[in-house]
Formats: sequence, structure tokens, C-alpha cells
Amino acid sequence: MRITSNRLVCLALCLCLLAVSGAAQQRNPLPVPDIQGYKTLKCDFHMHTVFSDGEVWPTTRVNEAWRQGLDAIAITDHAGYNPNKADVPPDLTRPHALASALAARLGILLAPAVEVMKGDTHFNVLFVSNQNAFMGLDLPDALREGRKQNGFIFWNHPGWKQPAAWFPDVAALYNEKLMDGVELVNGTSYYPQAFPWIEEKNLTILSNTDVHAPAPASWENGSRTVTLVFARTPDLEGIREALFARRTAAWMGGEVWGNEAQLRGLWDGAVAVETPELKFGPNLRQLTLRVRNNSSLRFQLRLTKAPAWLTAGAVELRPEGGAGISVRLNKDAPAGTQSVELEFEAANLHVAPNRNLSVRLPLKVVVAQ
Amino acid sequence: MRITSNRLVCLALCLCLLAVSGAAQQRNPLPVPDIQGYKTLKCDFHMHTVFSDGEVWPTTRVNEAWRQGLDAIAITDHAGYNPNKADVPPDLTRPHALASALAARLGILLAPAVEVMKGDTHFNVLFVSNQNAFMGLDLPDALREGRKQNGFIFWNHPGWKQPAAWFPDVAALYNEKLMDGVELVNGTSYYPQAFPWIEEKNLTILSNTDVHAPAPASWENGSRTVTLVFARTPDLEGIREALFARRTAAWMGGEVWGNEAQLRGLWDGAVAVETPELKFGPNLRQLTLRVRNNSSLRFQLRLTKAPAWLTAGAVELRPEGGAGISVRLNKDAPAGTQSVELEFEAANLHVAPNRNLSVRLPLKVVVAQ
Amino acid sequence: MRITSNRLVCLALCLCLLAVSGAAQQRNPLPVPDIQGYKTLKCDFHMHTVFSDGEVWPTTRVNEAWRQGLDAIAITDHAGYNPNKADVPPDLTRPHALASALAARLGILLAPAVEVMKGDTHFNVLFVSNQNAFMGLDLPDALREGRKQNGFIFWNHPGWKQPAAWFPDVAALYNEKLMDGVELVNGTSYYPQAFPWIEEKNLTILSNTDVHAPAPASWENGSRTVTLVFARTPDLEGIREALFARRTAAWMGGEVWGNEAQLRGLWDGAVAVETPELKFGPNLRQLTLRVRNNSSLRFQLRLTKAPAWLTAGAVELRPEGGAGISVRLNKDAPAGTQSVELEFEAANLHVAPNRNLSVRLPLKVVVAQ
Amino acid sequence: MRITSNRLVCLALCLCLLAVSGAAQQRNPLPVPDIQGYKTLKCDFHMHTVFSDGEVWPTTRVNEAWRQGLDAIAITDHAGYNPNKADVPPDLTRPHALASALAARLGILLAPAVEVMKGDTHFNVLFVSNQNAFMGLDLPDALREGRKQNGFIFWNHPGWKQPAAWFPDVAALYNEKLMDGVELVNGTSYYPQAFPWIEEKNLTILSNTDVHAPAPASWENGSRTVTLVFARTPDLEGIREALFARRTAAWMGGEVWGNEAQLRGLWDGAVAVETPELKFGPNLRQLTLRVRNNSSLRFQLRLTKAPAWLTAGAVELRPEGGAGISVRLNKDAPAGTQSVELEFEAANLHVAPNRNLSVRLPLKVVVAQ
Repeated sequence: MRITSNRLVCLALCLCLLAVSGAAQQRNPLPVPDIQGYKTLKCDFHMHTVFSDGEVWPTTRVNEAWRQGLDAIAITDHAGYNPNKADVPPDLTRPHALASALAARLGILLAPAVEVMKGDTHFNVLFVSNQNAFMGLDLPDALREGRKQNGFIFWNHPGWKQPAAWFPDVAALYNEKLMDGVELVNGTSYYPQAFPWIEEKNLTILSNTDVHAPAPASWENGSRTVTLVFARTPDLEGIREALFARRTAAWMGGEVWGNEAQLRGLWDGAVAVETPELKFGPNLRQLTLRVRNNSSLRFQLRLTKAPAWLTAGAVELRPEGGAGISVRLNKDAPAGTQSVELEFEAANLHVAPNRNLSVRLPLKVVVAQ
Repeated sequence: MRITSNRLVCLALCLCLLAVSGAAQQRNPLPVPDIQGYKTLKCDFHMHTVFSDGEVWPTTRVNEAWRQGLDAIAITDHAGYNPNKADVPPDLTRPHALASALAARLGILLAPAVEVMKGDTHFNVLFVSNQNAFMGLDLPDALREGRKQNGFIFWNHPGWKQPAAWFPDVAALYNEKLMDGVELVNGTSYYPQAFPWIEEKNLTILSNTDVHAPAPASWENGSRTVTLVFARTPDLEGIREALFARRTAAWMGGEVWGNEAQLRGLWDGAVAVETPELKFGPNLRQLTLRVRNNSSLRFQLRLTKAPAWLTAGAVELRPEGGAGISVRLNKDAPAGTQSVELEFEAANLHVAPNRNLSVRLPLKVVVAQ
Repeated sequence: MRITSNRLVCLALCLCLLAVSGAAQQRNPLPVPDIQGYKTLKCDFHMHTVFSDGEVWPTTRVNEAWRQGLDAIAITDHAGYNPNKADVPPDLTRPHALASALAARLGILLAPAVEVMKGDTHFNVLFVSNQNAFMGLDLPDALREGRKQNGFIFWNHPGWKQPAAWFPDVAALYNEKLMDGVELVNGTSYYPQAFPWIEEKNLTILSNTDVHAPAPASWENGSRTVTLVFARTPDLEGIREALFARRTAAWMGGEVWGNEAQLRGLWDGAVAVETPELKFGPNLRQLTLRVRNNSSLRFQLRLTKAPAWLTAGAVELRPEGGAGISVRLNKDAPAGTQSVELEFEAANLHVAPNRNLSVRLPLKVVVAQ
Repeated sequence: MRITSNRLVCLALCLCLLAVSGAAQQRNPLPVPDIQGYKTLKCDFHMHTVFSDGEVWPTTRVNEAWRQGLDAIAITDHAGYNPNKADVPPDLTRPHALASALAARLGILLAPAVEVMKGDTHFNVLFVSNQNAFMGLDLPDALREGRKQNGFIFWNHPGWKQPAAWFPDVAALYNEKLMDGVELVNGTSYYPQAFPWIEEKNLTILSNTDVHAPAPASWENGSRTVTLVFARTPDLEGIREALFARRTAAWMGGEVWGNEAQLRGLWDGAVAVETPELKFGPNLRQLTLRVRNNSSLRFQLRLTKAPAWLTAGAVELRPEGGAGISVRLNKDAPAGTQSVELEFEAANLHVAPNRNLSVRLPLKVVVAQ
């Protein structure tokens, strides 16, 4: 028979049933390469639940993190701001306590945390031992408490409600050594004013969602804002060490901001040339350099340096995608075999204000005549 | 400022423009692991153009193959059936000639080929030197010509219009050694009757689209029917050697049919355990074994063997997806560390009629008390 | 210039920005036609929040309903089952109170409701005046309280944990007139055993999600389980009247169950013939009857009655889709113009156990000779 | 039982099978309202096949048009440019002849047509009686032949390879009355320089794809460039009359260009207010005006005029989508009932260079106190 067999019918059916029943087990693997001997962990250190002004139960944040491919999260409900308090009496140790069993079962790392604030100036403290100790404290005292608990402290959304600037009150906290990092990205907002501070003030880059509602449907396929953490070990201690050592990058909407060596590590681990040798001929002056991106990152490439007798087109390497770079020779191309290196700007990988990552693709060019 | 910066705006714009201009350069990488020292090539050896009863120009087949992640194709227009002949005078060397420059530019391997037929009995001959020599020959003579040209010969859609059977006319051709393989899959039709013949008659498995119209939109994301070829070298000679050596598998709609050792090779190369050690506790009797599928294949797993004190759920590993297998211990689980091997049936990987691939996942189980 | 103009660039950009900022304003219109002078309202009368065993804040249910095209919902947290009570002290009037302002702003009708239960036997009561009055009551007393509050009472998931049957304890409640309807569908589970009861016992059909977690991403595009209510007026009083008058249908996964006249009304309002006249000729014996489905419903059609000289293919009318039905004449087709009526079975519209809706398409057949 | 019943299983299966077998019958209905007593036809009057420099057989263009919701097309192979001529001997009557039977069967209107050219200056002639008569003629003579055959003549892609301008050679043809319209849009390129000519020179707007390859996958869901034709009758004569009467609009990528009255007609037919009355209260100062877009068009709205005591947000009405416009009252809002009209700019509907369509939404505002 040519019609689809009964066994196929059964398969189709099984696939349908599995698709329904198994949805909860599915996880976007969100591949990002390890670099320089470190594990690359995908993290979100800013989110809310019904225990302050969020809309979901703490376990929901763990399930979202699992599905969306994260390795670690922190629930950062507000100490001292709780519009739900009439219905949910404030006890800020509860979000972490309620989420930890599910996190253990799913292997999601859960850093105990809290958000403290004064007006529009908000900070998160990670790795705290008692969130309730922050209640009722004004901002400087809350950060001093954070230090006392050996927490990692960062400034949230530095340009919320007004353009980001090195405000005097923040500067005072920084000068008192109460600030280890800053959110370069919060949600879908990037704060360009904050990028220079990373080097000038020796701060750690953070990039978090600050999600209050249930995670939107669009995050299921890799568009969630993420802090990349390059950790010695894939556990909370490893994250803590990496945060204090400033080994992180921001990843939002296809763009990445971070240290040059670390971003180059991401490129090296993510991209493979599938056609390392191109054989041109007298009538074959244009060939396709095939490249594969094994990661969930995106790379937008524009040629910046090549031999004078060779041109190559711009290309975008989509997440887990393949692409072809059109390589053309002009009439000056020398006969024989040349090992060349094409240099590209990765326009969406930012290593410093106004400076993008420069990357290289090796290529053997064979010209027959 | 918190609003998206100008640089982001520019990026968004560039992404849009690239998305339009660069569409032609994008390729679905369609990852399938190499096995046993062989390169795994993704091939389609049956398709048509306007030079017989197809609807597209030969170059279109090369572009489709590029976008959809194939490594090799064969254009197999009919010798002796050409409803377009009033407008396209028959010269069966032309499809290959017209497509070869683009194929060279894109790095798509193009096997010269032809389809020959008598009534509903159709055969393809690959690696021919002159397609026009097949015109006007009846089927046995056409296949003898195929042998003379050192072609690889296979029977197409053995169950087209009537249930597949070892028909006497086909048997005669086979007995004359004019048949090297058979299409186990043609388009979306699988022929279960033909599966036993692979071993009984020492045939090579083929699995092709037989596409006549432009490739449908649905094929762009990995749903195209494919012949997997395990080749020594990624070139036409490598494909030819592998076809005669019967190193192929059929891949259609999530299912794979092939040799047990080769399919196990696909599993081994595709699937990685991300949590090789699970640490259970007195109140933590259920944990999630995290598994990643790095390939475009699909694996539907059902536990078939495990220690008596452990159960594990069924799971589907989607293409390039991650999943969690729920592992539960019962009260008899021994304290301490055990190295166990979980055995699963991969219900969609078929190694023989009514026999599916059995696969294993190693796991270290730590039970604290 | 041929390159995209600056104004287009601006548009593309504006579209991007709107896409982000405006997401919350978007609503799936989920079109289903009004019938027989009634407004067709899309409702879900069974869902949970953190106030019993759900995972979301009450306002989240309103936002989900808005985005997914619903007209009315009921939050039915459990009276007497609250695993969250250590953190959310039980006050069952709160979910409705907390959600009502947002519901008013968005125009979502919100019926005050409660779920009561004994073991696996659960009932919902809609249009209650005081949810807290149900706390601590055993099931019969709870339903008597529901009657006292003039509520509409229905049996939830009649086949949960064991096959659905007319259990003695339920029969007793029914005999005491404490039951107005039954969930024919709960989530993605349809209970075929319950379908005969609708007529036998004069019950109202309900079809609800019983959602506990945040609404899954897949519901955003029309796949949510819905109770269709055919109401005199699009307000709570209209819904109440329609529920007691048994003017409802169940809609889940492309299938609809309901009263024959009402389902025919849905068909009549949803489907339009775009080519009411087909002109055949001596060499034109096959033409395409073009049909459009203006609703979010689905119709799977199979020809059941037509003139002997005409055949027509099966077709599926997808939500808001168009389709062509292939109409062929055989040689006995009379010359001239014939008004015919094609009769189809709508295989996914169920009007009684084992009986599907029969629908008609009028067609003028012109045969030239 | 709660598990999905056997009948559902069968349904799921049937849905799968129908999905495969019925794909060819599916059509995107691409709804656009009729206006001013005219039928709105969706057309593409510029496309190629293997009979000049295209890649597909003529029937493919008809199937694409059917699937993508078009009403009419013209195949416009080049007279005098045929890179395929070694394989497809030139006879320009053949594309229309080969496509016409399928077009009749599917009800797609097929206008006989041809493209003529000199260098980069290309024109199409629609409704010709003999395409071969154009072969070998230079451009002015070809257009004179077009006039002789009573064709409708338009200038293609006026800004191809160089910025669009009223070039002397084109002006000469226009002055000789050999030009009835111009492509404001070709493919994804809009030519802003040409928009003023529509009124200044009394030309008809055209907007076509000029597709050469198979239609890309992205066109299946409504993104194809289209000429909207407002015709007295839905047939070729109706299209011809409308083209000469200049009743057309250009539609590309969400934007529409055309005559103010006609674009207003599209708005009026497409958009419905679902909540014509909003009832505010002392504590309810913000409500949502719910609007539905029944068409495949897109509308981006920005408030331009309203009573001083009312503000309304910007919104995008997506194709066949629903949206909510947030309406807020300030403290000066008068008590009682007011009938107001909100005026918006539809930023993507262009009625003249630098002028967009202004549209109104009526609203009854009730303010209780």
C-alpha cells in the first residue's frame, strides 16, 4: 500500500498524546558555549511573586525558568513594598522557602534574595540569609545589612523614570562599598549611560527581567533577557564567586554586552566553519563559505578586513542556524592555495561603549587556473 | 533614559533589513551526528523539474536543498515521460547541466540521475553518464543501460497505486542483478511490506521526496523526507560507495528506519545527559534527569528496564530540544551511591520489522539518609 | 531609488515599537457567530488562583481572558481546600473583589463563584453572594447554600480519577434538585458518558479549563476550552438566564458538542459560499466550490448526499480559513442550470451521542454543452 | 473515564490526515472589505515563469495565487528577454495557455499579459490578444502595439537601479499616451518619488510582486504585495474597467497607498467598535474601548482629536485582530452622557505624499457621579 501504514498512524497518535502530556517536561536547551574553562550559566536575578507586587506563586518562577532554559534564578520580592499585604501577610523568607523543593527537583539553582528601595532607587541583594531583616530599613541601612549577610549587591534599572546618571545618592552608596554591580539591562531596557561605569567603577554587569506578571508566551523560544554567568562550578557558590569576580555578560534581544575576551570565547565556542576550503576556478569566481552557529546567540557580521582580491558579503548567523557567506574573487586573485583570515565586526556584540567585537574566520582559498 | 536607546533602534532596524536581504543566505543546519567514523550526509535522490513532469527549473531544486539543510540531491526527470515536451524539447542531460554551477557555488553535491519506468513500476538510476541513452528503452533494457553506465539502481515507491509486493516483474529485474536498493519511503508514504526485503534481499534503504511542485513551506523547518547516507568522504564518490555498501537510513516525519548499529550511532551522537548524578534525600524522592538532544532527530522514549526500586517517566526528546525525565525512588532504594543504567525503547527508531531501537542512559543515583 | 525608503524604515521601526508596547492591548477576537437572536458569549467558569490551589493572582485571570478573547469568567477557588493557607489566609470573597476593577476596565464579565467538594466529587456554584458562607459545609449542605444564594450549580469533571458514571451520591444531589448542569469537558478531557445525561436529565452543558497554573502559551491563539453561552443580553444577567435555560455548547480542541438547532446556527453564521454558481463545460468537468469560514470554529466536512451525477471531496474549514471543495460531474450531468443542495456531515460537531451535525451548501450548477 | 476518549482519538487522527491530504485545498481568505458598491479584488499583475527568466511552470503561479488568497493574476513573461531559450523555445502565448485550465477550475482570473523593455525601463501590458506580436519591437513600438491590442499599460519599478525620476524617455511615452499606470510598489520596494505622479499625471496605482522564484514561504500568511482593485464585477472586464478608471490601491508590508475616499471605505468596512458605550464612575476613570479589525489590513492609530477632558492611547489593529484603546477621563469630564468622536491618524494608510488617512471612532461616554 502507499497510504500511510497503521504503524505510522499509531506513531502520529502517540506523538499527539506525548505532545500534550509531555509539555511540562520540555525545556528549551538555550545552548550557549562554556568559555575559558568556565561553565556558562543562564541566570535571571530579578523577579517578583505575590509576596510583593508580582502576580504568581513562587513555584511558577521555577517552572518558567525550567521551560525557558535557565540554570539559576533569584526571587527578589520587595522588602517594604507589598500592595498585596492585606491578603498575603509579609514574610519575605517564604518565596524562597516555597520554591526550593521544586527547584531541587528540577535542578534549578535558587539564590535567596531581596529587593530594597528608596523612591525610584532600587537595589537587589543576592545570597542573603534572612530577607526579613531588611524590612523597615532605609536604603543605606538595608545595603549595610546586605553586606553583613555577605550578599552580592547591585543597582537595579539605573535609568528608570529618568535618564540613567551617576546620581549622588547612588555615588554615596558606591563610595561606601555597598554596590558590586549594576543592571545594564532591565526587561527590554538597555541603559547606555551605564556601560562605561562597568570599567570605570569596576562593577559587575547584570541583565534581568524584573518580571511581575506570568512570563509572556514569547519567552518560551529564547527571547528572555538573561545574565550570562561564567562560573567555575555550576552551583550557587560558583555563581557567587563569578559575580564578585565580574565574570558576567548581558544578553537581551539578540544583543550581548560584556568583556572582550569572554565574548570572543562565546564566538569561538558557538561558530563553526563547515567549508574550510573553497576551490575556485576560472569560471567559478564566487563560492559560499558555509558557517554554522551552534548556540542560541545571534551574530551579525560585516566584513572589515580581507585580502584586496577577495570580497565577502554581510551575513546574520541566527540562533542554531546555518548561513552562507558569499565569497568573490576579483581578477587579481593569485593562483594556487592561500590561507587567509577574514575579519568581521560582530555588530551586536558590544565590548565597550561604541566598540563591537571583532571576529575572524579562517579560510583556505584554492584558485585553479 | 529607560526607553530603548538609539543604538538599539538601529540594531532593530538592521536586524529587519538583514532579515529581508539575507533570507537567501540562511540555511537550516539540520544537525544529524556523524557515526562510526562516517560523515552523515542528508540526501534526496528523487525529484523532478520542468524537464519532465515537475513544475520548477533545475536551479530551484538546488536552492531548496541549500535552505533545507541537504548535502546532496539528484534530479531524476523521467526518460520517456514528458507532458511538457511541446514546450520543453526533451534533452535529459539539461537538468543536471543547468543546476551544476549553482550547486558548485553553494556546495550542494549533485548526482547525475534519471528515472525510468514501465507502467507503475519506476526505477531511479544514479551516477549516470548520459541520461539521454535511456530514452526509448523498455524497463529491463533501461536498467541494463544503467548497469553499463555504472549506475546505482533502486526501485521507487514499491507500493504506489497497489500494495507493495515482490512483484514478478520486479523479481526478474532483481534476479538479473539490476536492483541495488528500494525506496522504503517516498514522500510521506512508508511501505512496511518493503522493510523485510532490506535484509532478505540485501538492498539499500532509500527515502526520497519525489517532489514535483515547488518544495512546500512546511519543509523549511526540518520536515523534509531524507535519505541519511553514512559516507567515508563528503563527496559524490563517498555517497556512491556508501550506497553500494548499504550504509543508509530512511528519515521521515520523525521516524527513522535503518540498521541497528547505525541508528545507535545516531543516538549516541545526538543525546547528552546533562545531570549525570542525581542526589536524593529522605524527603526528596523524585528528581529530574535532564537530557539534551543536539540533533534534528526526534526520540520517543519509554522505560523498559531499571532497578526495581526506581521508576522513570516516558519522554519525547524533540529536535534540538531539552527534556526532563522524572525519576522516582521507592522505599526500597538503597542508601549510598549506585551506578545504574536505564534502558528505554526509542519507539520511533525502527531497526527491523516490529523491532525498535533499545537505548541506554547511564545515571549515578545518590541516596542520602 | 529602489531601496526601501526612509519612510518605510520609520514604519518598520514604529511597527516594532508598537509590537512591544502594545502587546497588552492586543486581544484575540475569537469570532463565533451570534445565533437565533442571541449573543454568543465565550466563557470559562472554572479556574483557580493563589486563594486556593492556583498559582496566580486574581487579576491575572482577567488579563488572560482579555487576551484570549473571552467575554466572561468565574474564579472558583475551593471552599475548604487551601494548601496556601499558611501564606494566604482564607477569605473567599477576595478573588472576586481583587479582580473586579480590572474586569470592569477591560469589559470582562466576572461571575462571583465558588467550588465545593467532597473527595473527588466537586461542584461549582456561580452567581453566589457570599463565598465564605460555603466554608466548612459538607457537600449537600454546600449545594443547599448555593440554592439559597440563588446560584447556578454544576458538577465538575464527572470522570475525574474514575470513569464517569451516574454515581449514587451525585444522583441523590440531583434528585434533591441541587444540580443544574455538568462539565462535559474539563481541560482537555471530554466525558462521553456524560453526553446522554444532557437530554435524559435536562442538564446544561459546561466546558471549562479548571486552570491552576498561568494560562499556557498555546491558548493565546484560540485553543482554550470554552463554554459557549447563547445569551439574550451580553451581561451577567443574560448569562445567568441562558445557563438556567440550557442555551450553551462545549467547545474544545476543534470539537463542539451541543443542541442541534444551536450548532446549526453556528454553521449558518460562520460559513459563506463564495462561488454560488459553477459553470462547467464539455472539457471542464471539475471545478472548485470556494467556501469561507468567518469564525474561530473548525468544520470537517464529508459529503453525505448529492445528485447521482455529482461528487464532491471532503474538506476541512480551518478557523478563519478558506477552502475549496472539488466538485466533479460525471457524464450523466444534465445540460442547463440546476439548483442543487450538497449535504455534508460536520464530523466534529456533535448534536447527540453518536450523531453529528448535518449541514447543507446550496449550489447552482451550470452545464454548457 | 477522564482520559481522552476513543472518539477524540479518532478525531485527532482524522484532523492529522486531513491536514496532510487537504493542504492543497486550503486558501488564505485574505479578507479585505468591498467599498462603495465595488468588489475589492486582490491582484498581482507582474510575475514570471520559465517562459522567460522565471523558475516555475505557469500553473504554479495559479496555485500560489489560490493558496495566498488572490483573485486575479497576470503572467508577464518578457518579450525579447529569455535566458532559458536554449531549453524553452520562445512562444509567449504559452504561459497563459498552459495556466488557463487550472485558473478556470480554481476560479482565479488570469489576464493575458506581457512585459516589454528597453534597458532598465520596463512596462507591462495587460489584456493583450497576442503576446508574440511584441517580440522584436523596440519599446515605443511595443507600447503602440499594446495600445493597438487595447491593452492597459503601466511602467514597472520606476526606481530600479537608479532613483525613480520622470525620465525623458518615459515622459515621451507618457506624452504619446502610452502609459496608464505606474508601479508604486514592486516586490518590497516602494518608490516615494512616484506617489505625486498619481495625481499630477492621472495615473493608476499598481503594486505587484515581480516574482521570479517560487513564492516564498512567508507569503502564505498574508504578506504578499498586492494591487487592490475596486471592480464593478469580479471578472476580467471588471478589472479592466477599474484599472482604466484608476480605482486601485497599493498594499505592501502592512502599508496601503491610495485615494482618500477608497481608503476610508476600507477602514469603514474593516473596523467595528465592540463597546460603543463606556460607563465611567467616580472611581472608574479609565476604561477600554474595544475595537475589532475584520480584515487582513493593519491599522496603526494615534489620537489626533478628542474632547479636552478625554485622552486615548495609541493602538495597532492587527490583521483579523482585536485591540483595546485605553480611554481616560480627567477631572473636567462632564457628568451625564456625551456622544463624542475620537479622531485618529492611521499612520500606515497614505492618501497623498506626506498625508495619512484620518479616521474616526464614535463613542458614547457615560459619566456617573
